[in-house]
Amino acid sequence: VVTAEHAIDSLIEAARWMSARGLLPATSGNLSARLSETHAVITASGVDKGSLRPQDFIVLELHEPPRPGTSAETPLHLRLYRDDADVGAVLHGHSMVSTLMSQRGEREGGLRLHGYELQKAFAGVGTHDVTVEVPVVPNGQDVEALAGIVATRLASRASGVVHAPCYLLAGHGFYGWGRTVADARRHVEALDFLLGCELEKARMRP
Amino acid sequence: VVTAEHAIDSLIEAARWMSARGLLPATSGNLSARLSETHAVITASGVDKGSLRPQDFIVLELHEPPRPGTSAETPLHLRLYRDDADVGAVLHGHSMVSTLMSQRGEREGGLRLHGYELQKAFAGVGTHDVTVEVPVVPNGQDVEALAGIVATRLASRASGVVHAPCYLLAGHGFYGWGRTVADARRHVEALDFLLGCELEKARMRP
Amino acid sequence: VVTAEHAIDSLIEAARWMSARGLLPATSGNLSARLSETHAVITASGVDKGSLRPQDFIVLELHEPPRPGTSAETPLHLRLYRDDADVGAVLHGHSMVSTLMSQRGEREGGLRLHGYELQKAFAGVGTHDVTVEVPVVPNGQDVEALAGIVATRLASRASGVVHAPCYLLAGHGFYGWGRTVADARRHVEALDFLLGCELEKARMRP
Amino acid sequence: VVTAEHAIDSLIEAARWMSARGLLPATSGNLSARLSETHAVITASGVDKGSLRPQDFIVLELHEPPRPGTSAETPLHLRLYRDDADVGAVLHGHSMVSTLMSQRGEREGGLRLHGYELQKAFAGVGTHDVTVEVPVVPNGQDVEALAGIVATRLASRASGVVHAPCYLLAGHGFYGWGRTVADARRHVEALDFLLGCELEKARMRP
Repeated sequence: VVTAEHAIDSLIEAARWMSARGLLPATSGNLSARLSETHAVITASGVDKGSLRPQDFIVLELHEPPRPGTSAETPLHLRLYRDDADVGAVLHGHSMVSTLMSQRGEREGGLRLHGYELQKAFAGVGTHDVTVEVPVVPNGQDVEALAGIVATRLASRASGVVHAPCYLLAGHGFYGWGRTVADARRHVEALDFLLGCELEKARMRP
Repeated sequence: VVTAEHAIDSLIEAARWMSARGLLPATSGNLSARLSETHAVITASGVDKGSLRPQDFIVLELHEPPRPGTSAETPLHLRLYRDDADVGAVLHGHSMVSTLMSQRGEREGGLRLHGYELQKAFAGVGTHDVTVEVPVVPNGQDVEALAGIVATRLASRASGVVHAPCYLLAGHGFYGWGRTVADARRHVEALDFLLGCELEKARMRP
Repeated sequence: VVTAEHAIDSLIEAARWMSARGLLPATSGNLSARLSETHAVITASGVDKGSLRPQDFIVLELHEPPRPGTSAETPLHLRLYRDDADVGAVLHGHSMVSTLMSQRGEREGGLRLHGYELQKAFAGVGTHDVTVEVPVVPNGQDVEALAGIVATRLASRASGVVHAPCYLLAGHGFYGWGRTVADARRHVEALDFLLGCELEKARMRP
Repeated sequence: VVTAEHAIDSLIEAARWMSARGLLPATSGNLSARLSETHAVITASGVDKGSLRPQDFIVLELHEPPRPGTSAETPLHLRLYRDDADVGAVLHGHSMVSTLMSQRGEREGGLRLHGYELQKAFAGVGTHDVTVEVPVVPNGQDVEALAGIVATRLASRASGVVHAPCYLLAGHGFYGWGRTVADARRHVEALDFLLGCELEKARMRP
């Protein structure tokens, strides 16, 4: 159990960092943290994420429908908390890198990373010499339905690959999570770095 | 009716943000906000937009010719306020992204965006699954004539597309607007992100 | 006549801005300002340009050989002040953009810009519809000889083009100048923006 | 002999600068400085390098196996100090530029730089007209073995080239060093600039 004050402080700081990095453009994105087995806090809809205040957060009951005022994307957060008790924080943003790479990976349903030392920033990955997959799901405006599609995709892992603790919605952005806000932030930073490397490779002459 | 003090404070903050993002290079760009049905405030010509002070603004009468000391581009602001009572603020800047993409879109008279979640940052756009057009007009140094050409272009919308609340002058930069300074700023940020994605696609191998 | 204190303050602020923009990497670059018909101040060699102090400047006699402790590149500054009484400040830096574009323009002896509104940031340019040339000179370690080669190149202007108030040394960086430090800084910012646009065009698919 | 307090202050400041430049993503990287012929200080494992405190450093005995709590990469630091008494500081980070360029240079065992004025930022290089080689070594998770492979590679210099005071691990990042923390930082900044130029050339149309 985490106090709401501590969770909110961590999320405000993570949002400031994400905003400065261009991961939350035009008031987009949302951030949440688990408080207990049954509750979490999430950012309110439509506010500028670079300068959040404690009153910009809403308490969620994890096993109830989202309350009014929460972001339309709340069901995607709820599903991650419900399906995995180890998820303690979820960060959603829209970098250019994740927008572009998600569109490149949409047809294959995922992007594969291999040979990068920074893969080790993902919890559970101990070497550059493993293939890490970032699942990609088509975007949709029916968010309850989308949450189900995402859950199905996350549960289906190809043999010989490890899933990164994150996924992409095509043309939309990334969801990343971890046991703590600090872990989720490290995962999001590594994801943006590694997808940025892949984007650069798509630019270079062979 | 908005007080001049409040409008100026919002514009100073928006200019600081635009300047830090590289949208106002080399003292370029200008920002304005509507005060009433008949008046607006606009930045004076030639000052560094990253550190504006209240004395760097000039009050405009919307239905009179521009006063001395205002930017040469003032007629482009005036025309937007005159033609649409819902325009409450206009932000003009020169990012590299808008300069380059405007040149790519000049022959077609516009750039089309489709499939991006961030399109929803534009007022009136509720889904990624619609085509949003950003009108592009050739640049010109006769600004009164240019204002008329822009107005004609904005009034002409192809079927099946929605216009973004912004346009580009080729090789020059962007104009973006909204009901409030905050809305205009969100539109400008989304425009720069989305044009940046399109520019990246022009760089990548297919 | 400008007081040394005022000139140094302006250069410290310009260096901080250039450093934050990546124009002075690895203690490179140097900045100077004219004090009178016979004297100027210039940054000392080898110091970090992001945090200059008044004691990091040296007074130069414009018509004498450079004093010990001044940068090896001092003759390039002196020559500009001697050849044009309107030169009041000279800023030299090493952006990636100017390094790369200077190598692309070396064989032709210059880079030509056309159709950009931001060309108007250069003193004496009033329209996007003119061709502006940025002279490019091969790099060399004999700086006295190099100063003469630069002067000859600057004096030779092709018909139908305007020279920008700046030049590039191939694989090295840019020199930009103006009547005041503020003018020189505006020229350097516009140069980096416009060369950045040209570099992007070299990246894009046609 | 350098006091531990002074060495740690310099490393904290260097880490803040590297972090702001994106050279230490996702808590990666490590920094060290020599205290004497027999001792050095190094950053502890897993902490955020943008906000280091004095208690985040560990004293190393240069000729002993690494102590518990030190980074897994400590043997790579130790080997540099043992093999060259002039090495006073070692900075290791993971920029996107060095990750990508190291993969491009892996097969050849190095990257060659020529014709850049900024090469002169490397100690011992006095002209753009020399070929500077940055050695590249395949990555590995057995760090003691890797330290030996690196040492062998550094000792083998092709004729006609100068080695930069740095090397790359493929898909991993850079190691840079110097007599002082300031020298090592200048070398790392120049390396990132020059590899960035080479990466841009791989993007451009010929």
